[in-house]
Amino acid sequence: MVLLLCGAAVHSFRFDELIKYVDDHQEEYVQTLREWVAVESDSSDVTKRAELYRMMDMVGEKLRKMGGKVELVDIGEEQLPDGSSLALPKVVTAQFGSDVNKPTVCVYGHVDVQPAQKEDGWATEPYNLTEINGNLYGRGASDNKAPVLAWIHAVEAFKDLPVNVKYLIEGMEETGSNGLDAMIKSQKSTFFSDVDYIIISDCGWLSKRPALTYGTRGNCYFFAEVEGPKQDLHSGVYGGTVIEPMTDLIGILDTLISPSGTILIPGIRDAVAPFSDEEWKMYQDIEFDVESYREKIGVEQLMYNNKVELLAHRWRHPTVSIHGINGAFSAPGTKTVIPAKVTGKFSIRQVPDMDPAVVEKQVTDHLHSVFAKRKSPNKLKVKMIIGAKPWLADIKHSLYEAGKAAVKRVFNVDADMIREGGTIPIARTFQDVTEKSIIMLPIGGFDDGLHSQNEKMSRDLKMKNSI
Amino acid sequence: MVLLLCGAAVHSFRFDELIKYVDDHQEEYVQTLREWVAVESDSSDVTKRAELYRMMDMVGEKLRKMGGKVELVDIGEEQLPDGSSLALPKVVTAQFGSDVNKPTVCVYGHVDVQPAQKEDGWATEPYNLTEINGNLYGRGASDNKAPVLAWIHAVEAFKDLPVNVKYLIEGMEETGSNGLDAMIKSQKSTFFSDVDYIIISDCGWLSKRPALTYGTRGNCYFFAEVEGPKQDLHSGVYGGTVIEPMTDLIGILDTLISPSGTILIPGIRDAVAPFSDEEWKMYQDIEFDVESYREKIGVEQLMYNNKVELLAHRWRHPTVSIHGINGAFSAPGTKTVIPAKVTGKFSIRQVPDMDPAVVEKQVTDHLHSVFAKRKSPNKLKVKMIIGAKPWLADIKHSLYEAGKAAVKRVFNVDADMIREGGTIPIARTFQDVTEKSIIMLPIGGFDDGLHSQNEKMSRDLKMKNSI
Repeated sequence: MVLLLCGAAVHSFRFDELIKYVDDHQEEYVQTLREWVAVESDSSDVTKRAELYRMMDMVGEKLRKMGGKVELVDIGEEQLPDGSSLALPKVVTAQFGSDVNKPTVCVYGHVDVQPAQKEDGWATEPYNLTEINGNLYGRGASDNKAPVLAWIHAVEAFKDLPVNVKYLIEGMEETGSNGLDAMIKSQKSTFFSDVDYIIISDCGWLSKRPALTYGTRGNCYFFAEVEGPKQDLHSGVYGGTVIEPMTDLIGILDTLISPSGTILIPGIRDAVAPFSDEEWKMYQDIEFDVESYREKIGVEQLMYNNKVELLAHRWRHPTVSIHGINGAFSAPGTKTVIPAKVTGKFSIRQVPDMDPAVVEKQVTDHLHSVFAKRKSPNKLKVKMIIGAKPWLADIKHSLYEAGKAAVKRVFNVDADMIREGGTIPIARTFQDVTEKSIIMLPIGGFDDGLHSQNEKMSRDLKMKNSI
Repeated sequence: MVLLLCGAAVHSFRFDELIKYVDDHQEEYVQTLREWVAVESDSSDVTKRAELYRMMDMVGEKLRKMGGKVELVDIGEEQLPDGSSLALPKVVTAQFGSDVNKPTVCVYGHVDVQPAQKEDGWATEPYNLTEINGNLYGRGASDNKAPVLAWIHAVEAFKDLPVNVKYLIEGMEETGSNGLDAMIKSQKSTFFSDVDYIIISDCGWLSKRPALTYGTRGNCYFFAEVEGPKQDLHSGVYGGTVIEPMTDLIGILDTLISPSGTILIPGIRDAVAPFSDEEWKMYQDIEFDVESYREKIGVEQLMYNNKVELLAHRWRHPTVSIHGINGAFSAPGTKTVIPAKVTGKFSIRQVPDMDPAVVEKQVTDHLHSVFAKRKSPNKLKVKMIIGAKPWLADIKHSLYEAGKAAVKRVFNVDADMIREGGTIPIARTFQDVTEKSIIMLPIGGFDDGLHSQNEKMSRDLKMKNSI
């Protein structure tokens, strides 16, 4: 990442000296990461909010010590389901250098994490960074604490920065960046006024080859609630006399996807941008082993066995996942219950040129239509909870040229040009609000286990490149 | 219930005196119930096992204090899914009187309960018996702690018992009475040798009119497990490349029941005993208001609007309920996960003359057949976890004549002759193993909320009879 700072500016510097400095300070960097991982900054759990506040303070402190102009920006409160409200973690902004003759680069990152418990199947304590064979295991290690620290330490390593650098570090990314959109909009003509480029490293490589990311899928997350009886009923006592909400819910969820994975919601695939020959060619050049991917996931067969098709369905075609049901019996064991109100949760990853508002209407209309055909006395409510847009960058932009040059210099290979199957809504917000150019430069490895058990960050990025 | 003891024997006693004694001691009875409800004897949760052991000790102690000959019978261990084993709660047996000139009545009951948490939607703390308008709210109040205590206090109230009384109280009923069948078989020629009649009060009235129960449905409870990836996956990163276990599970669960409630599993309804004219006539005489039932459940429309059809589908036709899914996302909020292994839980209430072994084969064959058609790379395992048979008594037996007489004396109305939609497998075991006559005499009210939120026992049975 150090290189990218240079790529973005015309400036000479001693590369070897910088590399040596970084190597000499590696243990300090790992120690800081250890301290950050130790903070259980799980933004999805309101009982952990104090830890999240502490995490933001630590980020501010770190940047302040380096001589940055730091602010902790209040972004308001979130409303909890019980009617109470809770302060959102402040957003940390920082500035290093304000030379009007230099371009200004803004680095975005987040320091909140997904939930993790050892019982989920972790081999080590998730909040105790543990090194095994050069891999540093811990929740948030790769998503996104180490990448944030990498950008911070890169600036620290420079004696004379070739660009002005700004940071924007948030603490609510894992739950939808609540409050951040408004903050970005409100600072459009202040904090962002002199920003030329925005860099995001909240993503990972695809293989052992370094990559640059130029697109992400969006996410339309739906709740489909079917409500019947006033309260849960004993299935022995009442079974056979009521149309059960679970039967209805299962019935309508079963109309979303075909057994082979085709989305069955009418119209949903119409807006998808056609797959060009140029894209096909680019996908073919990407370093990606389908068989390793299959083995890693541990399934007997993937949806597609061909590299291009598989990557295309991962990145630039929409997909539906059914995540689960709230309100039904979900524990181990047996319970003879007719759940009274059940909420099916599913999401559609959308891609250019789909529009969340259109997707919302298509899904809602479809579900109400199939539900109506059931002639059920129960009630259906469909609601889109998240409507995050996809993002796509122009890979011919100078920012990507700089990224490619930087990767080439450090790793001596051409970067794979990749997309993300997941959603990084902030990229789209930056693009729409600030109208600045954005690049995603992944620092995490392809096997880092984001959102999963045994998340890790490898100590040596080059290790991944040992093809 | 006091009356039934008399109905079963030729004996004179002072009815008014007995009623007064019971009324005078009512607060003590409620206090004992409060103490019993306070024990979280949830047999489905192995972490609560110590509470269950304590509950059985309390039952033994109570009966011992009354002068009974009490035993806590070791019924062995249960195997847990992780390979370890756990002692089953002991079965309490007790004996009051051994006069060979008197008949011997054995009362069966259970003191374990279904799970309950205030967050499930209880208005009061489920394990803190709370009185509101003469109703005593608490988990297990009606199912089955108060009925067990009613039988205990009935014996306590008698100065001179007209019959010998035995008790058999267990602690695993809610999870299938693990270990009890073997215990009954092993004590057939000892504990049960002098038993003439068996009484079960693990059921409820149908309406405000008192009832006697002569049949129950059986229960075949199934787990259908679909396993795919090695571990949960991020739906953004992996969605579109794997056939998701949830899609498969939803797909096969959707083939069990039609939208109107018809079971779609081939062959399943073939063995059901035909509905006779005599039955039809008897059903027509039962006090049951379809509209009140509908209102109480709180649905806009029931499966059947006709009383006879509704009761028939509640009691003597099979039905399928889908209870929930284990392994999927079930919490409130949004989680973008592809669950790796999901287990659908459903049960079929079966009726005479269906056979659980046949049902198991029909369900397993059906699910494997529809799953095979999906050509999924995932793995399906189908397992019948509970296979409890239905039970049917001869309502012309002298035990039912005694029951009718007792109801008539206390309430001055004819008892409704009803069946239970739920399963009381022990009735069938008693019948098959001991070959004794069995009667079910419900003590719980029609609106007690068994297995549901806000379970309660009314303080005054007559209240329910205020037609």
